[in-house]
Amino acid sequence: MRVVVPFEATHPKTRLSPPLEADERRPFAEAMLEDVLEAIRGAGGDPTVLSTVPIEVDAPVEVDTRRLTPAVNAALEATDEPVAIVMADLALTTPRTLERLFGATGDVVVAPGRGGGTNALVVRHPDFRVDYHGASYLDHLRIAREVGASVRELDSHRLSTDIDEPSDLAELLILSDGAARDWLVDAGFALDIDEGRVGVRRTVE
Amino acid sequence: MRVVVPFEATHPKTRLSPPLEADERRPFAEAMLEDVLEAIRGAGGDPTVLSTVPIEVDAPVEVDTRRLTPAVNAALEATDEPVAIVMADLALTTPRTLERLFGATGDVVVAPGRGGGTNALVVRHPDFRVDYHGASYLDHLRIAREVGASVRELDSHRLSTDIDEPSDLAELLILSDGAARDWLVDAGFALDIDEGRVGVRRTVE
Repeated sequence: MRVVVPFEATHPKTRLSPPLEADERRPFAEAMLEDVLEAIRGAGGDPTVLSTVPIEVDAPVEVDTRRLTPAVNAALEATDEPVAIVMADLALTTPRTLERLFGATGDVVVAPGRGGGTNALVVRHPDFRVDYHGASYLDHLRIAREVGASVRELDSHRLSTDIDEPSDLAELLILSDGAARDWLVDAGFALDIDEGRVGVRRTVE
Repeated sequence: MRVVVPFEATHPKTRLSPPLEADERRPFAEAMLEDVLEAIRGAGGDPTVLSTVPIEVDAPVEVDTRRLTPAVNAALEATDEPVAIVMADLALTTPRTLERLFGATGDVVVAPGRGGGTNALVVRHPDFRVDYHGASYLDHLRIAREVGASVRELDSHRLSTDIDEPSDLAELLILSDGAARDWLVDAGFALDIDEGRVGVRRTVE
């Protein structure tokens, strides 16, 4: 399956500051992208990175300077084939998870993100368009209804967890063994397990 | 499958105060329990509530005043049959999600919670015991290894989301149509969709 991976390369992961410095967020975001691309290939997908600026990465890159919604809709309009949209910060994802996503039936398959976002999609209906603004999961259900597309929810913790905020780093340390996890460990991050709460601490600056 | 549903009935959901008042948290917790029991039955499970005090609920209740870990381990020791442990605050769960849980192969099936917890388990190995303290997901992987039990991760957003903190209420309004969602709506809660962020607001006190 063709898989589009939107990547915000200009100011990536601003909500991870702190704990990450400005010059750390880009390499960390690229390590997450690397993990996502590897999982896509492991699931038999054919990834293209949709980046806001040219980047060096082991996959075809299309540059589109527009915002997320028009850039993804242009990619949907460019083909009649099924297309998956998988966000570049889903660093917990695995080939197994993406096999579930790609294999799920439905004109539109939606993996909700925490907080009502849409972290991954499969689109098999010619008239479906995205709208990533606000609670996009609910909007995507509505848009699918409006164009007469059947919808399937893909229930996955790994796809619901975009690595956006400091607390998400703990998920990465617990559930991943990929490049982004290695990057965090090399940067001095470790799990900080208190009474019933799990966070991260940084021991090397 | 036999399913044990631990329910903390003495001081339920203290981290939901605010926005919930003390006299609201118990009925809200019971509405979530009701949703969980209905999903278990819908998936063909046979639930027993393991409560800290006697409660009125539409299922058999066993009272155990001990903490979660010894109470659940006593339930595991009491039988040689497979047992599932499903937390009472997994109000997003559905029959479909639990069918995946009950049907997954492995001596131990673990559904990780956000933050490294363990929200749902299936135990088919006689020597496996729980330890819910701290990052219990990692502890349960270790305990399974130590007793020679095979482990399968169950990747589910609905099972990873225990309704614990105010931000979790938005998940319930977005993804559920059960009794706990109805309770929230009746209590005046609604989604509050700002630029890219989704929360809840309360319009009726």
